[in-house]
Amino acid sequence: MNIKNIGLRNIEVADTRICFIDGENGLLTYRGFNINDLVNNSTFEEVSYLLLYDELPSAPQLTEFDKRLKEARSLPKSIINSMMDRKKNASVMDVLLTSEIMLAEYDDINDTSKESELKRAINLIAKFPTIITTWNAIKNGREIIEADPRLSHAANFLYMLHGSKPSKEYERIMDILLLLHAEHSFNASTFAAREVASTKAHIYASVAAAIAALSGELHGGANMKVMEALLEIGSVDKTNEWVKEKVRKGERIMGMGHAVYKTDDPRALILKELSKKLSKELNTPWYEITRVIEETSKREIRTSKGIDIYANVDLYSASVLYMLGIPIELFTPVFAIGRITGWCAHIIEEKFAEAQPKPVLYRPSAAYIGRYCGTHGCKYVPLKDRGMKEIKI
Amino acid sequence: MNIKNIGLRNIEVADTRICFIDGENGLLTYRGFNINDLVNNSTFEEVSYLLLYDELPSAPQLTEFDKRLKEARSLPKSIINSMMDRKKNASVMDVLLTSEIMLAEYDDINDTSKESELKRAINLIAKFPTIITTWNAIKNGREIIEADPRLSHAANFLYMLHGSKPSKEYERIMDILLLLHAEHSFNASTFAAREVASTKAHIYASVAAAIAALSGELHGGANMKVMEALLEIGSVDKTNEWVKEKVRKGERIMGMGHAVYKTDDPRALILKELSKKLSKELNTPWYEITRVIEETSKREIRTSKGIDIYANVDLYSASVLYMLGIPIELFTPVFAIGRITGWCAHIIEEKFAEAQPKPVLYRPSAAYIGRYCGTHGCKYVPLKDRGMKEIKI
Repeated sequence: MNIKNIGLRNIEVADTRICFIDGENGLLTYRGFNINDLVNNSTFEEVSYLLLYDELPSAPQLTEFDKRLKEARSLPKSIINSMMDRKKNASVMDVLLTSEIMLAEYDDINDTSKESELKRAINLIAKFPTIITTWNAIKNGREIIEADPRLSHAANFLYMLHGSKPSKEYERIMDILLLLHAEHSFNASTFAAREVASTKAHIYASVAAAIAALSGELHGGANMKVMEALLEIGSVDKTNEWVKEKVRKGERIMGMGHAVYKTDDPRALILKELSKKLSKELNTPWYEITRVIEETSKREIRTSKGIDIYANVDLYSASVLYMLGIPIELFTPVFAIGRITGWCAHIIEEKFAEAQPKPVLYRPSAAYIGRYCGTHGCKYVPLKDRGMKEIKI
Repeated sequence: MNIKNIGLRNIEVADTRICFIDGENGLLTYRGFNINDLVNNSTFEEVSYLLLYDELPSAPQLTEFDKRLKEARSLPKSIINSMMDRKKNASVMDVLLTSEIMLAEYDDINDTSKESELKRAINLIAKFPTIITTWNAIKNGREIIEADPRLSHAANFLYMLHGSKPSKEYERIMDILLLLHAEHSFNASTFAAREVASTKAHIYASVAAAIAALSGELHGGANMKVMEALLEIGSVDKTNEWVKEKVRKGERIMGMGHAVYKTDDPRALILKELSKKLSKELNTPWYEITRVIEETSKREIRTSKGIDIYANVDLYSASVLYMLGIPIELFTPVFAIGRITGWCAHIIEEKFAEAQPKPVLYRPSAAYIGRYCGTHGCKYVPLKDRGMKEIKI
């Protein structure tokens, strides 16, 4: 390529107060708080409050926030009807995207105050698990399970998905998974959300762009690809050879490497422990296979390319999600259930930034490498003088 | 702001062969061909072929392309049903977005060959006018008018919208409008489309992000805002004072100024002539009011800020669309009917770029301005020790 800014790596596109990543040292903070402290002490609900309001809530604030989330869980009937009319091969991410946009009809989108945007954020965080589990039930011809207001966000999602209340242990693991996925600075989906917000489109349009970006296999689709690899490998003794073959062919090993981290991703370290624990309890090979993928690919890539590569969040989240009984096709949607919080925080930051000068529409440039033909363009040849070429189009 | 790359202006994010803009000299070329030559000699269909295939079609190629467009105009029944179930206050852009994504269900999205992507592009170009006119009919309780395969893309759109065939003059003006909106390099919506394509999401997801970005008033919404201003002003003699008042208040005058052009936008010059012609024929004040907005705001802004500002594509497209009998709320959707071609060309370029190294996921950086609190983050205070602040959330 002629251009230097491939993938916009290290190009600072905005000021942000939301998330800090020190890729060299494996540090991740949400609004200044270390991800490890949040995992050890907090919940997805509290972290959502923190990300949206830029401070940890007081006890009454958290109670109120939690109440509003619970009250906003159910879906308008027309959105459920629309799901029922769809072809069953529709992808979950596409259903999430359309259902999310339909929510705009139930809102006065001309009210663009910050308070209203925060209400919309709560509404979206609350409804994502319902949209996904409702579609999953419809698709599989099962009864739609209503949300249970006695359950936490994480527990309620597992309840709506499986029809039974999860154990305290599974609830907590689900909670940590959502918390770890809630935010990660200017990743591709968050950047897409901010880009759309910069045009002054409504929040639902911004979130739609984020869902679209997350659906790609190089972004949110990576956790599915990891699990497909684990199932394909199937046992620990085959893992070494599988990885070596991939590296020999120059193929990408999903779950390894990250655009920002040049050391262990702190989220991967936490998920690795959870995967180990669950694998032991359930007597499955998934943790061990994943560990061998990590170690072998690290070693092989160091040997063949001379570079160090590390596990990212997707490598160990895959087996954890699988052992929680989440269908593989819901892995990326679960990522969205967590990340919707970060998307909303970023959209609101983009729209209400206090910085001077104000942020403007994202409108980058490109390096033109086509036929230029001087200052007026190429000579236009009339249709009749172009010959009768019948190339298959 | 701390950052230097506000709005990514002049940051080259990719190589492109599709469009060249010389903002200093007011030059715009599609695949090397001057926009003026295309307006004078070509049609939207031919320009769509040019943008997608990187060459002007031969006569048989254009015939085949046109046939495929005509065959692909009608919508699946389930998408029409879904529109019928929607609340009538749904925005047209939101309906376009959801309907567009639903098309993925009718496609084998696992087939990602370039040939299949080109077929999808033809399908999307063909269906955008149908989606928009179908929703417009449903919303207004009118009969849905089927596409007429004897009509060109432009004429068929006006026919489906109004229920009667347009004159040759109106057909040609509509055709020029679509052609002028078909492509414009890395504008916000096209960039959003490419960003989503960079994650390897399917083409429908990429286009969804583009529609989302176009819906913002700083991007595709600008033509509506211009027409609202024209109607608010109402007569030529009030225009001068209206503009002066805006400039005094430091408010933005929609339709004036552009991120790239530092002289007359060549599209605005073409639309200005069309607006003048239609205004004369129909004896309306819209051209004259627009002209006075342009001249007064140029003069006032030069005097007050010392900068030169020029009319952009939206300033004169507004009155042209209005005089063609297009409802204001369809102005931005009409922009999409043109721009879908450019979006598809860019998505395909992003996915099948021949450049080395290959394009990667767009993943920019940001300048962190929040509370950092040292190398491990701020001290986490347990909930019970945070006081009982009852701030309204």
